[in-house]
Amino acid sequence: MEVGPQSEAVLNVAAAAVGELAISDQVVTPWEVTGTSQGVNYDKLVDQFGCQRIDTALIDRIAHLTSRPAHHFLRRGIFFAHRDLNQILDLYEQGEKFYLYTGRGPSSESLHLGHLVPFMFTKYLQDAFKVPVVIQLTDDEKFLWKDLSIAESKRLARENAKDIIACGFDIERTFIFSDFEYVGGPFYENMMQVAKRVTFNTLRGTFGFTPEDHIGKCCFPPVQAAPSFASSFPHLFGVNDQLRCLIPCAIDQDPYFRLTRDVAPKIGYPKPSLIESKFFPALQGEIGKMSASDPNTAIYLTDKPKVIKEKIRKYAFSSGQSTTELQRKYGANLDVDVCIKYLNFFLEDDAEFEHIKKEYKAGNMLTGKLKDHVTDILSKIALAHQNARAQVSDEMVDAYMSATPRPNMFGTYSDYAKS
Amino acid sequence: MEVGPQSEAVLNVAAAAVGELAISDQVVTPWEVTGTSQGVNYDKLVDQFGCQRIDTALIDRIAHLTSRPAHHFLRRGIFFAHRDLNQILDLYEQGEKFYLYTGRGPSSESLHLGHLVPFMFTKYLQDAFKVPVVIQLTDDEKFLWKDLSIAESKRLARENAKDIIACGFDIERTFIFSDFEYVGGPFYENMMQVAKRVTFNTLRGTFGFTPEDHIGKCCFPPVQAAPSFASSFPHLFGVNDQLRCLIPCAIDQDPYFRLTRDVAPKIGYPKPSLIESKFFPALQGEIGKMSASDPNTAIYLTDKPKVIKEKIRKYAFSSGQSTTELQRKYGANLDVDVCIKYLNFFLEDDAEFEHIKKEYKAGNMLTGKLKDHVTDILSKIALAHQNARAQVSDEMVDAYMSATPRPNMFGTYSDYAKS
Repeated sequence: MEVGPQSEAVLNVAAAAVGELAISDQVVTPWEVTGTSQGVNYDKLVDQFGCQRIDTALIDRIAHLTSRPAHHFLRRGIFFAHRDLNQILDLYEQGEKFYLYTGRGPSSESLHLGHLVPFMFTKYLQDAFKVPVVIQLTDDEKFLWKDLSIAESKRLARENAKDIIACGFDIERTFIFSDFEYVGGPFYENMMQVAKRVTFNTLRGTFGFTPEDHIGKCCFPPVQAAPSFASSFPHLFGVNDQLRCLIPCAIDQDPYFRLTRDVAPKIGYPKPSLIESKFFPALQGEIGKMSASDPNTAIYLTDKPKVIKEKIRKYAFSSGQSTTELQRKYGANLDVDVCIKYLNFFLEDDAEFEHIKKEYKAGNMLTGKLKDHVTDILSKIALAHQNARAQVSDEMVDAYMSATPRPNMFGTYSDYAKS
Repeated sequence: MEVGPQSEAVLNVAAAAVGELAISDQVVTPWEVTGTSQGVNYDKLVDQFGCQRIDTALIDRIAHLTSRPAHHFLRRGIFFAHRDLNQILDLYEQGEKFYLYTGRGPSSESLHLGHLVPFMFTKYLQDAFKVPVVIQLTDDEKFLWKDLSIAESKRLARENAKDIIACGFDIERTFIFSDFEYVGGPFYENMMQVAKRVTFNTLRGTFGFTPEDHIGKCCFPPVQAAPSFASSFPHLFGVNDQLRCLIPCAIDQDPYFRLTRDVAPKIGYPKPSLIESKFFPALQGEIGKMSASDPNTAIYLTDKPKVIKEKIRKYAFSSGQSTTELQRKYGANLDVDVCIKYLNFFLEDDAEFEHIKKEYKAGNMLTGKLKDHVTDILSKIALAHQNARAQVSDEMVDAYMSATPRPNMFGTYSDYAKS
């Protein structure tokens, strides 16, 4: 179901979500995620937004088409919803290519663990489908919403690009761009195509904007919409403006792409498909998503093992009992335990994960031991990232961000070279 | 007086002008000019907008500073209002430079006579002060407001550039740009600086936008504001972001620049100064401005003398009497006569103009003879323009529109070469 005259109901529900229900109920917008005491109700979000759940058949189909096991983010229900993913797969099966589009708002110097999720998953999709990726750094958005200068937003964008590159994207299939650097030409034309077909009232319904808000807020949604259209990247896709786009993102970005999908056919472009994830929870639990601007909720990718250990020990919400005796007697509640949630994201080994869950739930494993285990796994990820990031030179950033062709982006050359 | 918290009254008056008074009173917005049966009341506009009248002392000062007679558009009260023009002249007297900024919305293939007015005047200012000019072609605006494709808007922009070049701008001091081609980089940064500091409510008060309007309307005012800041043109002005800007324009553009002047100090830039003209009246009289989209109101620059003669004969509103006898007895009302108004714009010779007015008012000159005279003068202008435009090659358009330095734009080389 799309935003548009035929689906005003969806809009109204969304408006209610950002408006009157804000105090007593969950709030999920691109700028705020607040769960209730029961966490974020993702089933409700899927119904509210009108996207589809990813089922086992769809996961199996991805594994089959890519000749490799589905990513554990899929198997574990972390990427759990989609829009028109089957269409992309149908076309892929028929030999048609597509491209991936993801992005990041560079609001902080350092990324936290949760920021890795879409990039790890997008890299998996890039490798599995052998398709190009465009990665938008919305430095304009962060300038408009935060108390940041343009120069600082641009600096953060470049710093964040290093973290993204460190995730291992294929340089032959990847284009990273900052809005302040790249907006213009065909990209600006697509922004205006979108802007002409969205009213202020629609933005009010979709994002909760008010007439007292600055108009930068109205200018931005077309900027986030434009990369959904291949013609925004003539140096990559030439005149192929019908190339399909798949957007891996957290589900709070859905409102942008409801708008985009509503506009697409009106301007002669295919609708982008989406594959959407749950949020990476804060240390305090699933009251919201991990926030880079609140250091006590987040584990940064720059944190040393000692810091990670301390944060997990001190802040990670545990469902374990208060004493060893009680823990052995009553066990733990896996549904709200933050350490279990973190393992769900970052412990790849399914058998080991199942074993830990079983032991912890039964009361055989104590909270302290679980926390040590989680500390170990997260520290390894952080250290690996720190090492990878240290290898990223300015020349590499320039190469990933250069608006020049990527002749091998659909894999022809790379695949031969690697085979 | 500027738009801002301290001047809400001005905003409210402007809102009233575009709102409830629309039926019974004059409407002047950037998209509509409708006078009353008494024509456009410019005194009222000056009070409503809060700009200043240009007086004889100011005109004399311009003549003195430029060592040449003031342009007849100044002497005849056609450019009749300003904002901070004295400041620009004070600085100029102290040896500081400034730049000129004007523009055009390319909504039609051919320009009409009225479109020449700001360009003739800007060329005079460029020659008299020896300063650079930036000329914005708002092809994005026309795409957003009119039923035009982007490709067609861009084509019209380039065609209109030829007409502008034919006005004789100095290629060493002139940069013409299309928004669809030029928006990006530092220009986009300035757009966002403006957008962050203007609310939807301010746009509603200033332009009459409603929440049912598409958001392209919100995106555009920052585009028209950006050229007021020197930092939008790094290829011209380098890091000199304090260079002053003077904007020659018709007074219906004042709302854009009230906004711009309100924002300027908040983002560390000087306010642009303005010099504002009356409208070139339609053939039917001062019910509005000449409109390129209504062929019966306009004399196009492409019209042949035969067509001009016919349009003047058939449509030019005359205050003369119905018979020769009555004309000789009662004379004519110069205040509403369109031919007299056209001569005010385009008959440069003050003595000849005074003579005609005197004879026509007294009833000694008949309407037919006056119309022949006007036809003759307008035909000469149109033919001269047609010849000049035929000389404009694609290479010349590329040169005027190239975003490259203009090393002699402040006249150092040219002046030596010419002296």
